[in-house]
Amino acid sequence: MAANPSSVQTAPSAKRYSDQTWSDICDVLSKRFAERFQTGEAIREQHAHTTTWITNQPPDAVVFATSTDEVAFTVRTCAAHNVPVIPYGVGSSLEGHVNAPQGGVSIDLSRMDKVLEIHAGDFDCVVQPGVTRKQLNEHLRDQGLFFPIDPGADATLGGMASTRASGTNAVRYGTMKDVVISMEVVLPDGRVMRTGQRAPKSSAGYDLTRMMIGAEGTLGIITELTLKLFGIPETVGSVAASFASVDQASRAVIATMQYGLPVARIELLDALTVRAMNDYSNLNFDEMPLLLVEFHGSDTAVGEYMELFRDIVEDNGGHTTPSANSPEERTRIWQARHDSYWAALQLRPGAKGIATDICVPISKLAECVGKAQARADADGLLAPIVGHVGDGNFHVIPLIDMDDDDEVARAKTYIAWLSDLAIEAGGTCTGEHGIGQGKIGYLRRELGDAVDVMVAIKHALDPQDIMNPGKILPN
Amino acid sequence: MAANPSSVQTAPSAKRYSDQTWSDICDVLSKRFAERFQTGEAIREQHAHTTTWITNQPPDAVVFATSTDEVAFTVRTCAAHNVPVIPYGVGSSLEGHVNAPQGGVSIDLSRMDKVLEIHAGDFDCVVQPGVTRKQLNEHLRDQGLFFPIDPGADATLGGMASTRASGTNAVRYGTMKDVVISMEVVLPDGRVMRTGQRAPKSSAGYDLTRMMIGAEGTLGIITELTLKLFGIPETVGSVAASFASVDQASRAVIATMQYGLPVARIELLDALTVRAMNDYSNLNFDEMPLLLVEFHGSDTAVGEYMELFRDIVEDNGGHTTPSANSPEERTRIWQARHDSYWAALQLRPGAKGIATDICVPISKLAECVGKAQARADADGLLAPIVGHVGDGNFHVIPLIDMDDDDEVARAKTYIAWLSDLAIEAGGTCTGEHGIGQGKIGYLRRELGDAVDVMVAIKHALDPQDIMNPGKILPN
Repeated sequence: MAANPSSVQTAPSAKRYSDQTWSDICDVLSKRFAERFQTGEAIREQHAHTTTWITNQPPDAVVFATSTDEVAFTVRTCAAHNVPVIPYGVGSSLEGHVNAPQGGVSIDLSRMDKVLEIHAGDFDCVVQPGVTRKQLNEHLRDQGLFFPIDPGADATLGGMASTRASGTNAVRYGTMKDVVISMEVVLPDGRVMRTGQRAPKSSAGYDLTRMMIGAEGTLGIITELTLKLFGIPETVGSVAASFASVDQASRAVIATMQYGLPVARIELLDALTVRAMNDYSNLNFDEMPLLLVEFHGSDTAVGEYMELFRDIVEDNGGHTTPSANSPEERTRIWQARHDSYWAALQLRPGAKGIATDICVPISKLAECVGKAQARADADGLLAPIVGHVGDGNFHVIPLIDMDDDDEVARAKTYIAWLSDLAIEAGGTCTGEHGIGQGKIGYLRRELGDAVDVMVAIKHALDPQDIMNPGKILPN
Repeated sequence: MAANPSSVQTAPSAKRYSDQTWSDICDVLSKRFAERFQTGEAIREQHAHTTTWITNQPPDAVVFATSTDEVAFTVRTCAAHNVPVIPYGVGSSLEGHVNAPQGGVSIDLSRMDKVLEIHAGDFDCVVQPGVTRKQLNEHLRDQGLFFPIDPGADATLGGMASTRASGTNAVRYGTMKDVVISMEVVLPDGRVMRTGQRAPKSSAGYDLTRMMIGAEGTLGIITELTLKLFGIPETVGSVAASFASVDQASRAVIATMQYGLPVARIELLDALTVRAMNDYSNLNFDEMPLLLVEFHGSDTAVGEYMELFRDIVEDNGGHTTPSANSPEERTRIWQARHDSYWAALQLRPGAKGIATDICVPISKLAECVGKAQARADADGLLAPIVGHVGDGNFHVIPLIDMDDDDEVARAKTYIAWLSDLAIEAGGTCTGEHGIGQGKIGYLRRELGDAVDVMVAIKHALDPQDIMNPGKILPN
């Protein structure tokens, strides 16, 4: 998901420190960073910008860091003055993660963009946090390796780790929690911690790597990542299959998983999204629920998997599109899938697309997608749905006229209802976007007293609450 | 690894509470649990017993819990009296995890052995912590599903989660950190927490599931686990390949991984272990380094993978054993692999096998195995080696005469050296056994200041230090 700047408002932050404190901190940081310390309005507003409908709350300054030392220096300086620190990658997060509700300094990590080491024999690499997923794959291409995690946006790897991101390949390759081997992290007091070494697995102590993944910058700032890599598959095969109902499509998904077919991707698009995608990307799928499936492996294996999947589609009342597996057609179709957010926006030009995500057990998928569609209809909302359905994860994108207060209110109520729907189905209010500011209200509904344990950890590691305050945890 | 009781001594614990306190607690617990509260010497000693050479330190009493409520009641009672609590499964841990160095109450969870729910369509199940991995697989067999994590012992799933266990299948299916979806945990103050719901993935807040996995009972007691399951593969194919050197075998491993062959298992046995296994299990492999490899998948795919693997073996100077893939022969060979610890013991009857484990980047494997062998020879230690080499993880099992103080001292020095070797190679002092008491000394060498973060978390969640004290973290 990339930036969608329409109709988002900016609000001043509620600063929690005095003008004198701020003046002191500016002296220290501008002396150290010179023109890489910025307080101009445009830069500050840009660093509060997210692809959400949440009001922008710009930081008071931005530091463009180029090294771990610089991040640690900035954090130490802010800690000494009790001033908040907000890590920033490319601002593609969706739930207000980069906002500065209590003011403070945004640390822009996009210039820490070096691939430091590639260990092809070990299937790992070491990168700075500002490297984006596409940059990394560009870098890896001639080594026969790739990094599989692919959220919609070309996000930074530090940001992806911080929100526990995933994407279309997660059903085969996992999420960020599965592919980060270890990290270097600047702690809230400015100390630098390494969460682990480079061994593929370890039983040595608490899993601080996983604790930092998904912590959204509230426990520290990731300054280096050691990541798992994978061999580029010999063959990639793709099948597209249309179904009369989401229920049929879901049954095909379950059968595919139960058969043990190693899908690399299995994506569901509802009829509304198929219509939008046909128009936007000049395709001509039937305007029915669509599954896009991809297999990775040897030539023989992929051929066999595709054949078996086609049988499963037929058994569940669907039909496949014969052309989906020519390389050109495949590229075109998957590009269209990746563009489905933009395509959806064209269903209602001028509207804002509020991408929200929930994740449920696969057996509840059909029921939850059906209910989400029915309720959107009843509420008068146009809300296309796409999903990483091998994981039970789906996105609903209500298309909202942000100038219509009543419609905005209905959309908010709808998204709250959707989170409750997921939680009641044994699922989660967010499969891959994170809590940020937008979903704080649902965390306790989902996890109960576990939230108190999170608060205890936060207090233990960041007693001043300077690391990205106002995110994940209720005040 | 199962129990190996020879030559382990028992030492009294250094109790940290008064006789009056103990008398009070006995009143409360014996009233609640009647004959399920035991203070007899034999039962207490059995609950301190581990398969390690570390001195047994029995608890002062054992509670046989049958429900979460009972665990919570026991923990609350102990917390009120500042008395330690030590969770116990079947006692198959290797680093002194179940010892009671400060006295206290062992909570035996082996009677919480029910498989509570199986959701075949969701590929998950909910179990109590005392269910063992073999019990679970027995239960699953007629559903076409299996649970892949297989440490040597038939450990409980609660214990396996607590030590972040893995085994021979980890290269394909991951470790406990990858297959636990969520847990119910009794916290150090007796509150009950649920770390997540049943959705396959989530970005909702800190990853408390992963924080509890590998925490060795120092942050709470796992009372329920929701686990990922997998479809039983259509076909299983096995290849055994002998090599002139560990270096050649390691090169074949790297080539296999680089080719992207989806091995389900890839195990290395050194020449010494092969000799032991031949004798113990009546096999006749060449007494050379041996790779045992297994593939899971469709008939065609497995056939193709085996063919490709045989090519890789030849390219790296090895030769395969033609008979390894008949079903009977395969079962026999893998049983022999699982029995390799017992086989190794027969290399020196009466000796104790001190199973230690390290894990390094795969590119360092040949070098580290070679150094481990050379140093054992130089130190006059008989030390067979087996490894889950797709993960860079290997076990060294020095066979020690426990009555020979000099030899015991040499073995201790050797194991310390081995941990340093792993750490210097970018690896870890334990890939799957855990820190317990035995490896506390290496944790800071490996992870530096990250240990302080672990201590801060421990203090935040267990300020009284009642949960399995004296494990993982230095005093």
